[in-house]
Amino acid sequence: MALKQVSSNKCFDGFQKVFEHDSTELKCKMRFGIYLPPKADIGKCPVLYWLSGLTCTEQNFITKAGHQQAAAEHGLIVVAPDTSPRGCNIEGEDESWDFGTGASFYVNATEEPWKNNYRMYSYITEESVSAFAPICNPVQCPWGRKAFGGYLGLDQTKWESHDATLLAKSYSGSQLDILIDQGKDDQFLAAGQLLPDNFIAACTERKIPVVFRLRQGYDHSYFFISTFISDHIKHHAKYLNA
Amino acid sequence: MALKQVSSNKCFDGFQKVFEHDSTELKCKMRFGIYLPPKADIGKCPVLYWLSGLTCTEQNFITKAGHQQAAAEHGLIVVAPDTSPRGCNIEGEDESWDFGTGASFYVNATEEPWKNNYRMYSYITEESVSAFAPICNPVQCPWGRKAFGGYLGLDQTKWESHDATLLAKSYSGSQLDILIDQGKDDQFLAAGQLLPDNFIAACTERKIPVVFRLRQGYDHSYFFISTFISDHIKHHAKYLNA
Repeated sequence: MALKQVSSNKCFDGFQKVFEHDSTELKCKMRFGIYLPPKADIGKCPVLYWLSGLTCTEQNFITKAGHQQAAAEHGLIVVAPDTSPRGCNIEGEDESWDFGTGASFYVNATEEPWKNNYRMYSYITEESVSAFAPICNPVQCPWGRKAFGGYLGLDQTKWESHDATLLAKSYSGSQLDILIDQGKDDQFLAAGQLLPDNFIAACTERKIPVVFRLRQGYDHSYFFISTFISDHIKHHAKYLNA
Repeated sequence: MALKQVSSNKCFDGFQKVFEHDSTELKCKMRFGIYLPPKADIGKCPVLYWLSGLTCTEQNFITKAGHQQAAAEHGLIVVAPDTSPRGCNIEGEDESWDFGTGASFYVNATEEPWKNNYRMYSYITEESVSAFAPICNPVQCPWGRKAFGGYLGLDQTKWESHDATLLAKSYSGSQLDILIDQGKDDQFLAAGQLLPDNFIAACTERKIPVVFRLRQGYDHSYFFISTFISDHIKHHAKYLNA
Protein backbone atom coordinates (compact mmCIF):
# COMPACT_ATOMS: atom_id res chain seq x y z
CA MET A 1 0.00 0.00 0.00
CA ALA A 2 1.83 3.12 -1.23
CA LEU A 3 0.98 6.12 0.94
CA LYS A 4 1.04 9.70 -0.27
CA GLN A 5 1.09 12.38 2.42
CA VAL A 6 -1.63 14.97 1.71
CA SER A 7 -1.02 17.23 4.71
CA SER A 8 0.90 17.38 7.97
CA ASN A 9 0.24 19.90 10.75
CA LYS A 10 1.93 20.03 14.12
CA CYS A 11 -0.69 19.86 16.87
CA PHE A 12 -0.17 19.42 20.64
CA ASP A 13 3.50 18.54 20.02
CA GLY A 14 2.58 15.68 17.67
CA PHE A 15 1.40 15.71 14.05
CA GLN A 16 -2.06 15.55 12.51
CA LYS A 17 -1.51 14.07 9.07
CA VAL A 18 -3.69 13.02 6.14
CA PHE A 19 -2.59 10.29 3.73
CA GLU A 20 -4.01 9.05 0.42
CA HIS A 21 -3.63 5.54 -0.96
CA ASP A 22 -5.07 3.23 -3.60
CA SER A 23 -7.37 0.77 -1.86
CA THR A 24 -7.40 -2.70 -3.34
CA GLU A 25 -10.64 -3.53 -1.50
CA LEU A 26 -12.51 -0.44 -2.66
CA LYS A 27 -10.85 0.01 -6.06
CA CYS A 28 -10.52 3.75 -5.61
CA LYS A 29 -8.29 6.30 -3.91
CA MET A 30 -9.00 6.70 -0.20
CA ARG A 31 -7.86 9.21 2.42
CA PHE A 32 -7.47 8.81 6.15
CA GLY A 33 -6.41 11.07 9.00
CA ILE A 34 -3.80 9.95 11.50
CA TYR A 35 -2.69 11.73 14.65
CA LEU A 36 0.82 10.83 15.80
CA PRO A 37 1.39 11.80 19.44
CA PRO A 38 4.84 13.08 20.49
CA LYS A 39 5.50 9.74 22.17
CA ALA A 40 5.44 8.07 18.73
CA ASP A 41 8.85 9.66 18.06
CA ILE A 42 10.51 7.58 20.75
CA GLY A 43 8.59 4.30 20.80
CA LYS A 44 5.59 2.24 19.80
CA CYS A 45 2.11 3.57 20.61
CA PRO A 46 -1.24 1.77 20.50
CA VAL A 47 -3.69 2.74 17.76
CA LEU A 48 -7.30 3.80 18.23
CA TYR A 49 -9.65 3.83 15.21
CA TRP A 50 -12.42 6.40 14.97
CA LEU A 51 -15.21 5.52 12.55
CA SER A 52 -17.24 8.58 11.63
CA GLY A 53 -20.94 8.66 10.89
CA LEU A 54 -23.19 9.58 8.00
CA THR A 55 -22.00 12.30 5.59
CA CYS A 56 -18.50 12.63 7.09
CA THR A 57 -15.13 12.47 5.36
CA GLU A 58 -11.83 11.97 7.17
CA GLN A 59 -11.81 15.74 7.79
CA ASN A 60 -14.77 16.18 10.17
CA PHE A 61 -13.27 14.35 13.10
CA ILE A 62 -9.70 15.63 12.74
CA THR A 63 -10.73 19.29 12.49
CA LYS A 64 -13.67 19.43 14.91
CA ALA A 65 -13.37 16.84 17.67
CA GLY A 66 -10.32 18.18 19.50
CA HIS A 67 -9.07 14.68 20.29
CA GLN A 68 -5.41 15.58 19.73
CA GLN A 69 -4.88 17.00 23.21
CA ALA A 70 -5.97 13.83 25.01
CA ALA A 71 -4.26 11.55 22.45
CA ALA A 72 -0.99 13.44 22.98
CA GLU A 73 -1.38 13.14 26.74
CA HIS A 74 -2.10 9.39 26.69
CA GLY A 75 0.27 8.51 23.83
CA LEU A 76 -2.34 7.10 21.44
CA ILE A 77 -2.19 7.11 17.65
CA VAL A 78 -5.68 7.91 16.32
CA VAL A 79 -6.66 6.83 12.81
CA ALA A 80 -9.77 8.34 11.21
CA PRO A 81 -10.69 6.65 7.89
CA ASP A 82 -13.13 8.08 5.38
CA THR A 83 -16.70 6.73 5.60
CA SER A 84 -17.22 5.35 2.08
CA PRO A 85 -15.67 4.95 -1.36
CA ARG A 86 -15.88 8.16 -3.37
CA GLY A 87 -16.13 9.07 -7.03
CA CYS A 88 -16.79 5.54 -8.26
CA ASN A 89 -19.41 6.71 -10.78
CA ILE A 90 -22.04 4.31 -9.47
CA GLU A 91 -25.54 5.27 -10.55
CA GLY A 92 -27.30 6.92 -7.58
CA GLU A 93 -24.20 7.21 -5.37
CA ASP A 94 -24.84 10.90 -4.70
CA GLU A 95 -28.65 10.91 -4.60
CA SER A 96 -29.21 10.69 -0.84
CA TRP A 97 -27.21 11.72 2.20
CA ASP A 98 -27.94 8.51 4.11
CA PHE A 99 -27.06 6.01 1.35
CA GLY A 100 -24.13 5.86 -1.10
CA THR A 101 -21.29 8.41 -0.79
CA GLY A 102 -20.59 9.17 2.88
CA ALA A 103 -22.92 6.37 4.05
CA SER A 104 -21.29 2.97 3.57
CA PHE A 105 -22.54 1.58 6.92
CA TYR A 106 -19.16 -0.24 6.98
CA VAL A 107 -20.52 -3.36 5.29
CA ASN A 108 -19.29 -5.38 2.30
CA ALA A 109 -22.11 -4.86 -0.19
CA THR A 110 -23.34 -7.98 -1.94
CA GLU A 111 -25.86 -6.26 -4.23
CA GLU A 112 -25.45 -4.55 -7.59
CA PRO A 113 -24.38 -1.85 -8.33
CA TRP A 114 -22.55 -1.48 -4.99
CA LYS A 115 -20.69 -4.73 -4.54
CA ASN A 116 -17.62 -3.84 -6.61
CA ASN A 117 -16.59 -0.79 -4.53
CA TYR A 118 -18.62 -0.71 -1.30
CA ARG A 119 -16.46 -3.14 0.67
CA MET A 120 -15.82 -0.95 3.73
CA TYR A 121 -16.00 -3.84 6.20
CA SER A 122 -12.96 -5.46 4.61
CA TYR A 123 -11.28 -2.06 4.19
CA ILE A 124 -11.40 -1.23 7.87
CA THR A 125 -10.85 -4.72 9.28
CA GLU A 126 -8.26 -6.07 6.85
CA GLU A 127 -6.47 -2.94 5.65
CA SER A 128 -6.83 -1.49 9.22
CA VAL A 129 -8.60 -2.76 12.49
CA SER A 130 -11.50 -2.16 15.04
CA ALA A 131 -14.71 -0.03 15.27
CA PHE A 132 -17.49 1.64 17.31
CA ALA A 133 -21.16 1.95 16.48
CA PRO A 134 -23.48 4.91 17.08
CA ILE A 135 -26.56 3.37 15.42
CA CYS A 136 -27.17 0.66 18.02
CA ASN A 137 -29.74 -1.49 16.31
CA PRO A 138 -29.73 -0.77 12.55
CA VAL A 139 -31.98 -3.68 11.56
CA GLN A 140 -34.78 -1.92 13.49
CA CYS A 141 -34.32 1.67 12.26
CA PRO A 142 -35.08 3.41 8.93
CA TRP A 143 -31.41 4.27 8.13
CA GLY A 144 -30.23 0.73 8.74
CA ARG A 145 -33.07 -0.95 6.84
CA LYS A 146 -32.49 1.31 3.80
CA ALA A 147 -28.71 0.76 3.85
CA PHE A 148 -28.70 -2.98 4.55
CA GLY A 149 -31.52 -3.59 2.06
CA GLY A 150 -29.59 -1.69 -0.62
CA TYR A 151 -26.12 -3.05 0.10
CA LEU A 152 -26.87 -6.56 1.38
CA GLY A 153 -30.24 -7.47 -0.18
CA LEU A 154 -33.57 -8.41 1.35
CA ASP A 155 -32.46 -11.54 3.27
CA GLN A 156 -32.34 -10.11 6.80
CA THR A 157 -30.22 -12.93 8.22
CA LYS A 158 -27.32 -11.33 6.33
CA TRP A 159 -27.85 -8.06 8.21
CA GLU A 160 -27.38 -9.50 11.68
CA SER A 161 -23.58 -9.55 11.85
CA HIS A 162 -23.54 -5.75 11.38
CA ASP A 163 -25.98 -4.97 14.20
CA ALA A 164 -24.44 -4.26 17.62
CA THR A 165 -27.62 -5.22 19.50
CA LEU A 166 -27.91 -8.59 17.77
CA LEU A 167 -24.18 -9.20 18.23
CA ALA A 168 -24.48 -8.44 21.94
CA LYS A 169 -27.37 -10.90 22.31
CA SER A 170 -25.14 -13.76 21.19
CA TYR A 171 -21.82 -12.47 22.56
CA SER A 172 -19.61 -14.94 24.38
CA GLY A 173 -16.12 -13.47 23.86
CA SER A 174 -13.74 -11.84 26.33
CA GLN A 175 -14.84 -9.33 28.98
CA LEU A 176 -15.97 -5.96 27.54
CA ASP A 177 -16.19 -2.48 29.06
CA ILE A 178 -18.38 -0.30 26.85
CA LEU A 179 -18.70 3.48 27.20
CA ILE A 180 -21.48 5.33 25.36
CA ASP A 181 -22.29 9.01 25.52
CA GLN A 182 -25.62 10.03 24.04
CA GLY A 183 -27.11 13.52 23.79
CA LYS A 184 -30.63 13.63 25.22
CA ASP A 185 -31.64 16.33 22.70
CA ASP A 186 -30.23 14.41 19.72
CA GLN A 187 -32.81 14.70 16.93
CA PHE A 188 -31.91 11.23 15.64
CA LEU A 189 -32.54 9.71 19.06
CA ALA A 190 -36.05 11.16 19.05
CA ALA A 191 -36.53 9.94 15.47
CA GLY A 192 -35.86 6.34 16.48
CA GLN A 193 -32.68 5.98 14.42
CA LEU A 194 -30.25 5.19 17.25
CA LEU A 195 -32.17 2.88 19.63
CA PRO A 196 -29.62 2.66 22.48
CA ASP A 197 -32.26 1.15 24.80
CA ASN A 198 -32.32 -2.01 22.69
CA PHE A 199 -28.54 -2.30 22.91
CA ILE A 200 -28.50 -1.76 26.68
CA ALA A 201 -31.25 -4.36 27.16
CA ALA A 202 -29.23 -6.88 25.14
CA CYS A 203 -26.07 -6.12 27.15
CA THR A 204 -27.94 -6.42 30.45
CA GLU A 205 -29.29 -9.80 29.40
CA ARG A 206 -25.76 -11.03 28.59
CA LYS A 207 -24.20 -9.27 31.63
CA ILE A 208 -21.98 -7.10 29.40
CA PRO A 209 -20.99 -3.95 31.33
CA VAL A 210 -22.12 -0.73 29.62
CA VAL A 211 -21.68 2.77 30.97
CA PHE A 212 -24.41 4.71 29.18
CA ARG A 213 -24.46 8.44 29.89
CA LEU A 214 -27.51 10.34 28.65
CA ARG A 215 -26.33 13.94 28.42
CA GLN A 216 -29.02 16.52 29.12
CA GLY A 217 -29.27 19.22 26.44
CA TYR A 218 -26.63 17.83 24.06
CA ASP A 219 -27.35 17.07 20.39
CA HIS A 220 -25.72 15.02 17.59
CA SER A 221 -23.05 17.58 16.59
CA TYR A 222 -19.28 17.80 16.97
CA PHE A 223 -19.93 20.30 19.79
CA PHE A 224 -21.27 17.30 21.72
CA ILE A 225 -18.41 15.02 20.64
CA SER A 226 -15.70 17.56 21.49
CA THR A 227 -17.15 17.95 25.00
CA PHE A 228 -16.68 14.28 25.88
CA ILE A 229 -13.89 13.11 23.52
CA SER A 230 -11.21 13.31 26.20
CA ASP A 231 -13.19 10.88 28.41
CA HIS A 232 -13.32 8.41 25.53
CA ILE A 233 -9.62 8.71 24.69
CA LYS A 234 -8.86 8.10 28.38
CA HIS A 235 -11.21 5.09 28.44
CA HIS A 236 -9.39 3.47 25.49
CA ALA A 237 -5.94 4.44 26.79
CA LYS A 238 -6.65 2.54 30.03
CA TYR A 239 -6.78 -0.72 28.07
CA LEU A 240 -4.43 0.08 25.17
CA ASN A 241 -1.63 1.19 27.50
CA ALA A 242 -2.25 -1.64 30.00
CA MET B 1 -30.51 45.26 16.59
CA ALA B 2 -32.91 42.33 16.16
CA LEU B 3 -31.13 39.02 16.60
CA LYS B 4 -32.22 35.78 14.96
CA GLN B 5 -30.77 32.61 16.42
CA VAL B 6 -29.33 30.45 13.62
CA SER B 7 -28.08 27.55 15.75
CA SER B 8 -27.52 26.53 19.35
CA ASN B 9 -25.45 23.52 20.45
CA LYS B 10 -24.67 22.53 24.01
CA CYS B 11 -20.89 22.31 24.45
CA PHE B 12 -18.88 21.88 27.67
CA ASP B 13 -22.03 22.58 29.71
CA GLY B 14 -22.57 25.95 28.01
CA PHE B 15 -23.94 26.80 24.57
CA GLN B 16 -22.23 27.56 21.27
CA LYS B 17 -24.71 29.70 19.38
CA VAL B 18 -24.79 31.54 16.05
CA PHE B 19 -26.94 34.63 15.52
CA GLU B 20 -27.83 36.65 12.44
CA HIS B 21 -28.71 40.35 12.41
CA ASP B 22 -29.09 43.28 10.03
CA SER B 23 -26.02 45.48 10.42
CA THR B 24 -26.67 49.18 10.03
CA GLU B 25 -22.93 49.84 9.54
CA LEU B 26 -22.45 47.23 6.83
CA LYS B 27 -25.91 47.40 5.24
CA CYS B 28 -26.18 43.63 4.98
CA LYS B 29 -27.03 40.62 7.10
CA MET B 30 -24.17 39.48 9.34
CA ARG B 31 -23.61 36.37 11.46
CA PHE B 32 -21.54 35.91 14.59
CA GLY B 33 -20.73 33.02 16.88
CA ILE B 34 -21.09 33.36 20.65
CA TYR B 35 -20.10 30.85 23.29
CA LEU B 36 -22.01 31.19 26.57
CA PRO B 37 -20.23 29.41 29.42
CA PRO B 38 -22.33 27.66 32.10
CA LYS B 39 -21.51 30.50 34.51
CA ALA B 40 -23.52 32.89 32.28
CA ASP B 41 -26.69 31.20 33.56
CA ILE B 42 -26.12 32.50 37.06
CA GLY B 43 -24.37 35.84 36.62
CA LYS B 44 -22.50 38.30 34.44
CA CYS B 45 -19.42 37.11 32.57
CA PRO B 46 -16.75 39.14 30.76
CA VAL B 47 -16.66 39.01 26.96
CA LEU B 48 -13.65 38.15 24.81
CA TYR B 49 -13.74 38.97 21.08
CA TRP B 50 -11.96 36.72 18.60
CA LEU B 51 -11.27 38.34 15.23
CA SER B 52 -10.52 35.72 12.59
CA GLY B 53 -8.12 36.12 9.68
CA LEU B 54 -8.26 36.00 5.92
CA THR B 55 -10.91 33.80 4.27
CA CYS B 56 -12.70 32.87 7.51
CA THR B 57 -16.38 33.13 8.38
CA GLU B 58 -17.76 32.96 11.92
CA GLN B 59 -17.68 29.15 11.57
CA ASN B 60 -13.92 28.44 11.40
CA PHE B 61 -13.11 29.46 14.93
CA ILE B 62 -16.19 28.02 16.62
CA THR B 63 -15.85 24.58 14.99
CA LYS B 64 -12.05 24.16 14.91
CA ALA B 65 -10.35 26.06 17.73
CA GLY B 66 -11.65 24.11 20.71
CA HIS B 67 -11.84 27.25 22.86
CA GLN B 68 -15.10 26.20 24.53
CA GLN B 69 -13.43 24.02 27.16
CA ALA B 70 -11.20 26.80 28.50
CA ALA B 71 -13.96 29.43 28.16
CA ALA B 72 -16.30 27.22 30.21
CA GLU B 73 -13.61 26.73 32.85
CA HIS B 74 -12.79 30.44 33.17
CA GLY B 75 -16.36 31.74 32.71
CA LEU B 76 -15.73 33.84 29.61
CA ILE B 77 -18.22 34.64 26.87
CA VAL B 78 -16.42 34.43 23.50
CA VAL B 79 -17.80 36.34 20.50
CA ALA B 80 -16.52 35.48 17.01
CA PRO B 81 -17.77 37.89 14.33
CA ASP B 82 -17.58 37.24 10.62
CA THR B 83 -14.59 38.79 8.81
CA SER B 84 -16.28 40.94 6.16
CA PRO B 85 -19.61 41.94 4.65
CA ARG B 86 -20.97 39.28 2.32
CA GLY B 87 -23.13 39.21 -0.78
CA CYS B 88 -23.12 42.97 -1.32
CA ASN B 89 -22.77 42.59 -5.11
CA ILE B 90 -19.72 44.84 -5.26
CA GLU B 91 -17.76 44.40 -8.48
CA GLY B 92 -14.66 42.31 -7.76
CA GLU B 93 -15.68 41.30 -4.21
CA ASP B 94 -15.07 37.61 -4.91
CA GLU B 95 -12.06 37.88 -7.22
CA SER B 96 -9.24 37.33 -4.72
CA TRP B 97 -8.96 35.50 -1.41
CA ASP B 98 -6.94 38.28 0.26
CA PHE B 99 -9.17 41.24 -0.71
CA GLY B 100 -12.95 41.67 -0.66
CA THR B 101 -15.16 38.90 0.79
CA GLY B 102 -13.42 37.32 3.81
CA ALA B 103 -10.69 39.98 3.84
CA SER B 104 -11.99 43.25 5.24
CA PHE B 105 -8.82 44.00 7.24
CA TYR B 106 -11.25 45.46 9.80
CA VAL B 107 -11.03 48.99 8.38
CA ASN B 108 -13.70 51.49 7.37
CA ALA B 109 -13.12 51.73 3.61
CA THR B 110 -13.02 55.27 2.22
CA GLU B 111 -12.64 54.30 -1.45
CA GLU B 112 -15.20 53.32 -4.08
CA PRO B 113 -16.70 50.77 -4.53
CA TRP B 114 -16.05 49.53 -0.97
CA LYS B 115 -16.96 52.46 1.25
CA ASN B 116 -20.70 51.78 1.43
CA ASN B 117 -20.43 48.28 2.96
CA TYR B 118 -16.83 47.68 4.07
CA ARG B 119 -17.09 49.42 7.45
CA MET B 120 -15.85 46.58 9.64
CA TYR B 121 -13.93 48.88 12.00
CA SER B 122 -17.15 50.55 13.09
CA TYR B 123 -18.97 47.22 13.07
CA ILE B 124 -16.62 45.60 15.58
CA THR B 125 -15.92 48.65 17.73
CA GLU B 126 -19.36 50.26 17.84
CA GLU B 127 -21.75 47.33 17.37
CA SER B 128 -19.38 45.18 19.50
CA VAL B 129 -15.83 45.86 21.04
CA SER B 130 -12.03 44.96 20.99
CA ALA B 131 -9.57 43.05 18.69
CA PHE B 132 -6.23 41.25 18.15
CA ALA B 133 -3.93 41.38 15.14
CA PRO B 134 -1.94 38.58 13.52
CA ILE B 135 -0.49 40.69 10.67
CA CYS B 136 1.80 42.80 12.83
CA ASN B 137 2.89 45.48 10.41
CA PRO B 138 0.47 45.60 7.47
CA VAL B 139 1.82 48.81 5.95
CA GLN B 140 5.06 46.90 5.24
CA CYS B 141 3.65 43.65 3.81
CA PRO B 142 2.02 42.76 0.47
CA TRP B 143 -1.38 41.80 1.99
CA GLY B 144 -1.65 45.01 3.96
CA ARG B 145 -0.52 47.27 1.13
CA LYS B 146 -3.04 45.69 -1.27
CA ALA B 147 -5.89 45.93 1.25
CA PHE B 148 -5.18 49.41 2.61
CA GLY B 149 -4.51 50.77 -0.90
CA GLY B 150 -7.83 49.36 -2.11
CA TYR B 151 -9.97 50.25 0.91
CA LEU B 152 -8.30 53.44 2.17
CA GLY B 153 -6.63 54.92 -0.92
CA LEU B 154 -3.01 55.77 -1.65
CA ASP B 155 -2.41 58.31 1.16
CA GLN B 156 -0.40 56.13 3.56
CA THR B 157 -0.92 58.39 6.58
CA LYS B 158 -4.49 57.01 6.64
CA TRP B 159 -3.16 53.47 6.98
CA GLU B 160 -1.22 54.08 10.20
CA SER B 161 -4.02 53.81 12.74
CA HIS B 162 -4.66 50.20 11.56
CA ASP B 163 -1.07 49.02 11.98
CA ALA B 164 -0.17 47.45 15.33
CA THR B 165 3.54 48.23 14.96
CA LEU B 166 2.95 51.92 14.23
CA LEU B 167 0.38 52.10 17.04
CA ALA B 168 2.90 50.56 19.46
CA LYS B 169 5.55 53.12 18.46
CA SER B 170 3.35 55.95 19.65
CA TYR B 171 1.54 54.14 22.48
CA SER B 172 1.15 55.98 25.76
CA GLY B 173 -1.99 54.38 27.23
CA SER B 174 -2.38 52.07 30.21
CA GLN B 175 -0.07 49.14 30.97
CA LEU B 176 -0.36 46.29 28.45
CA ASP B 177 0.52 42.58 28.68
CA ILE B 178 0.65 41.11 25.19
CA LEU B 179 0.82 37.40 24.42
CA ILE B 180 1.68 36.23 20.88
CA ASP B 181 2.11 32.66 19.70
CA GLN B 182 3.67 32.26 16.26
CA GLY B 183 4.39 29.01 14.38
CA LYS B 184 8.01 28.89 13.21
CA ASP B 185 6.99 26.90 10.10
CA ASP B 186 4.18 29.30 9.20
CA GLN B 187 4.39 29.83 5.43
CA PHE B 188 3.15 33.41 5.78
CA LEU B 189 5.91 34.21 8.28
CA ALA B 190 8.52 33.07 5.75
CA ALA B 191 6.74 35.07 3.03
CA GLY B 192 7.12 38.30 5.00
CA GLN B 193 3.39 38.85 5.54
CA LEU B 194 3.35 38.81 9.35
CA LEU B 195 6.52 40.68 10.42
CA PRO B 196 6.35 40.08 14.19
CA ASP B 197 9.98 41.25 14.60
CA ASN B 198 8.94 44.78 13.69
CA PHE B 199 6.18 44.71 16.28
CA ILE B 200 8.47 43.36 19.00
CA ALA B 201 11.09 46.00 18.21
CA ALA B 202 8.46 48.75 18.53
CA CYS B 203 7.22 47.32 21.84
CA THR B 204 10.77 47.02 23.18
CA GLU B 205 11.42 50.66 22.28
CA ARG B 206 8.29 51.73 24.19
CA LYS B 207 8.86 49.24 27.04
CA ILE B 208 5.57 47.44 26.30
CA PRO B 209 5.78 43.88 27.70
CA VAL B 210 5.31 41.23 24.98
CA VAL B 211 5.55 37.49 25.50
CA PHE B 212 6.38 36.22 22.02
CA ARG B 213 6.57 32.43 21.70
CA LEU B 214 8.01 31.09 18.44
CA ARG B 215 6.68 27.54 18.24
CA GLN B 216 9.01 25.09 16.50
CA GLY B 217 7.30 23.07 13.75
CA TYR B 218 3.86 24.73 13.94
CA ASP B 219 2.16 26.35 10.92
CA HIS B 220 -0.70 28.80 10.30
CA SER B 221 -3.58 26.32 10.67
CA TYR B 222 -6.27 25.74 13.28
CA PHE B 223 -4.22 22.74 14.42
CA PHE B 224 -1.72 25.33 15.68
CA ILE B 225 -4.43 27.57 17.19
CA SER B 226 -6.19 24.69 18.96
CA THR B 227 -2.88 23.66 20.58
CA PHE B 228 -2.42 27.01 22.33
CA ILE B 229 -5.95 28.45 22.57
CA SER B 230 -6.36 27.46 26.22
CA ASP B 231 -3.24 29.50 27.15
CA HIS B 232 -4.77 32.53 25.46
CA ILE B 233 -8.17 32.14 27.10
CA LYS B 234 -6.40 31.85 30.46
CA HIS B 235 -4.32 34.96 29.69
CA HIS B 236 -7.44 37.03 29.00
CA ALA B 237 -9.36 35.52 31.91
CA LYS B 238 -6.63 36.71 34.30
CA TYR B 239 -7.52 40.32 33.48
CA LEU B 240 -11.21 39.99 32.61
CA ASN B 241 -12.00 38.17 35.85
CA ALA B 242 -9.73 40.45 37.95
